Amino acid sequence: MGVLEFTGNLTHQTVVPLAVFVAILCLCLVVGHLLEENRWVNVSITAISIGFISGTAILLLTKGKNSHILRFNEELFFIYLLPPIIFNAGFQVKKKRFFHNFFTIMLFGVTGVFISTLIITVGSRWLFPELGFIGLTAKDFLAVGTIFSSTDTVCTLQVLHQDETPLLYSLVFGEGVVNDATSVVLFNAIQKIDVARLNRWTSLQVIGDFFYLFATSTALGVSIGLLTAYLLKILYFGRHSTVRELAIMILMSYLSYMLAELFELSGILTVFFCGILMSHYAWHNVTESSRITTRHIFAMMSFVAETFIFLYVGMDALDIGKWKITKLSFQKLTGIYCTIVLLTLLGRAAFVFPLSLLSNYINRRAQSASSITFKNQVFGFLTKSLISHLLLPNTLNKSNCRQEPRSPREDITLPLLSFEESASTNILRAKDSLSMLIERPVYTIHYYWRKFDDTYMRPMFGGPHSGSSEC
Amino acid sequence: MGVLEFTGNLTHQTVVPLAVFVAILCLCLVVGHLLEENRWVNVSITAISIGFISGTAILLLTKGKNSHILRFNEELFFIYLLPPIIFNAGFQVKKKRFFHNFFTIMLFGVTGVFISTLIITVGSRWLFPELGFIGLTAKDFLAVGTIFSSTDTVCTLQVLHQDETPLLYSLVFGEGVVNDATSVVLFNAIQKIDVARLNRWTSLQVIGDFFYLFATSTALGVSIGLLTAYLLKILYFGRHSTVRELAIMILMSYLSYMLAELFELSGILTVFFCGILMSHYAWHNVTESSRITTRHIFAMMSFVAETFIFLYVGMDALDIGKWKITKLSFQKLTGIYCTIVLLTLLGRAAFVFPLSLLSNYINRRAQSASSITFKNQVFGFLTKSLISHLLLPNTLNKSNCRQEPRSPREDITLPLLSFEESASTNILRAKDSLSMLIERPVYTIHYYWRKFDDTYMRPMFGGPHSGSSEC
Repeated sequence: MGVLEFTGNLTHQTVVPLAVFVAILCLCLVVGHLLEENRWVNVSITAISIGFISGTAILLLTKGKNSHILRFNEELFFIYLLPPIIFNAGFQVKKKRFFHNFFTIMLFGVTGVFISTLIITVGSRWLFPELGFIGLTAKDFLAVGTIFSSTDTVCTLQVLHQDETPLLYSLVFGEGVVNDATSVVLFNAIQKIDVARLNRWTSLQVIGDFFYLFATSTALGVSIGLLTAYLLKILYFGRHSTVRELAIMILMSYLSYMLAELFELSGILTVFFCGILMSHYAWHNVTESSRITTRHIFAMMSFVAETFIFLYVGMDALDIGKWKITKLSFQKLTGIYCTIVLLTLLGRAAFVFPLSLLSNYINRRAQSASSITFKNQVFGFLTKSLISHLLLPNTLNKSNCRQEPRSPREDITLPLLSFEESASTNILRAKDSLSMLIERPVYTIHYYWRKFDDTYMRPMFGGPHSGSSEC
Repeated sequence: MGVLEFTGNLTHQTVVPLAVFVAILCLCLVVGHLLEENRWVNVSITAISIGFISGTAILLLTKGKNSHILRFNEELFFIYLLPPIIFNAGFQVKKKRFFHNFFTIMLFGVTGVFISTLIITVGSRWLFPELGFIGLTAKDFLAVGTIFSSTDTVCTLQVLHQDETPLLYSLVFGEGVVNDATSVVLFNAIQKIDVARLNRWTSLQVIGDFFYLFATSTALGVSIGLLTAYLLKILYFGRHSTVRELAIMILMSYLSYMLAELFELSGILTVFFCGILMSHYAWHNVTESSRITTRHIFAMMSFVAETFIFLYVGMDALDIGKWKITKLSFQKLTGIYCTIVLLTLLGRAAFVFPLSLLSNYINRRAQSASSITFKNQVFGFLTKSLISHLLLPNTLNKSNCRQEPRSPREDITLPLLSFEESASTNILRAKDSLSMLIERPVYTIHYYWRKFDDTYMRPMFGGPHSGSSEC
């Protein structure tokens, strides 16, 4: 197996694009760092701009042939770039806060998509023929509805910061994850629907499908996370090598995503829950150096994948080939584009405001601090909707940067922590559990979960013992 | 850019092989760990065996269609798997020892390949027609000669351990790196040679080409290593993020390999020197957590890539397609195979023994401890030659495992360190430098290098100040 045998075969076709792309990626990191001091610019804007500039350069150098050097396809995105980003989000998410807001997240993620799909479908069916865009079937309109109802978690993670706007981050991101699952099941359900025989059972079946998909995807992620934790615990790799522990953690989390895709579940949901389980159990079973390394490896992979995506988006804007594919005129295209953006905004607005009110009403009964303010509804969700469709990301990100520091910091950790401490020291509180369940359901669930976790899960799968304040 | 749009397109064609392969890889890590206690088995054997078993299973499941699930091509190997392995080797190599043995390494790497190529070429030209294998031109025979003279550094790294047999490891590995460069240039030179007009100038030109390739590849690796160190130093990423430092280090080292391939240099040589420079300068410019993380990331990537390769080798053994391609009879194939193995061994023996004698003679004048023992020549080099052609890896690795612990530990660090200390404290020694240069050339070069390094390089590119004992 001499090395030489193939060296001559490494074609320029593969080497040139990769070398150029890696070089641009490096440039992007350095420039992004230099511009970070500037509050008007963030990593995604830098990446998109550099991508656009290099796309222009390549377009001129290749004499108008193509603007992008790497063939970016769904595979590249879904097999290599998305899993590390979502896994890292699950791995680093503040678990306590995420599960505290679980009800709100589910409300937005599930009900929201249904409302949004309905509005976009009906709207496009009514408006597209007016614009002269005809020939779509009822199924196509339903597909358009689901596609534009799903939100992009990657953009969300870039725009919002977990530490600056904790409540908004966990809501928007959590909704994105649930949202994806809902969209996947809706889309699949629509492909199967016989439009001629639509009846009440169809929608019930879609809802049933959703719960099945949600449950199985979560169960797969949780199982693989627990399996990894158990494997690391019984084999105790630390005795021998950090290298093996790292490899096992990375490969197992990747496996969870691939298995979900294989079984046609929501890979995003699976890898997200796998990340949560890994950080909750598996992470405690490895050596100190593995712990430091994993935190940084996952963050780094996620960071590089994000930069890669934004860089590509900048390059892709100049893709002449894609512009030429359509036979529609520029005016018609603009009209359709604007209609979709408008309908998407409308679809989001239609569920964000009423559901926020509902969620606030329910939460206020429990605790007043965690309500969703009007500013959050406007800037957070609006920005995300728009950015997820890549409409003028520059100006919007800027406006978002300006608004974010002003948005109120929802400090919900303080009451939560003080409750925690008292719970672990004061046994008398246990007798109040029934009244607690009525008054503060989320806390009570959390309390019993902690008890279960400390008694059964942690001794089995690893993790620090009770009373620790990690979240 | 909703996530959903493409989800439906993720074909089973891509997902199934990846999921299966990742699962097997995980299995391999766990089984490899469990069997590690057993001294007769190592990671490569486990991987090859598991690969063979799963290959058989897949062959039976697909009813004899194919035994391997991933299309393994040169690109996968040379673009994704080889760079991390060689980079990690450069990053973790004991630099002091490597450069101490530089003369010996060059002697084996350069002269060895020339001798070996000559023997294999002449031998195959004489023996192949005897076996009834005709139709090859003079150029083909020369190509066969170069191909089987290049050695596989990956196998070497698996069989030998830096800590157990330090001298042998650095010699064999170092030779492998240099050897690759020599083979690449010889192979390219042969493709250009006009066999009808062979004269004295041809060989001179080949030698000239080699030095050009060696110098440029090294220079590229060194430049990128220094550039990375300088970038990290002036930008001081640590203030902001470990993530960026990690990304820069990984991407820059990968870039060095891709650029070398782009300019048709030896990527292996480049990325190896880039690794050395990174660990010498760049590594000292990053935060503490980055330092821990990089060491483990690189080792982990290298480990996974190695396991991947061995796993594939096991699967590939059953590849029916490749066996069917040839029109030659089984007996003829066996004859040719044996001839090549024999000639390769002969080719290696022809330069390993005389050159070891020469090297020992020269080194003995300087220092007696670093000589190459007969046992090293026999077991080390013989094993490598055979393993690099994948001949009965099981039994050979076993015999190697048995022999290695017995081979004498060449403790050359002790005199080196004691000299070091005295050099840094005793200024009087400086006046002896001329006589030192004559008596102990390697030490003197090292001494002056350290002075230059401390005075000019480290203040510029980073690194600990003089007197430190890191190597």
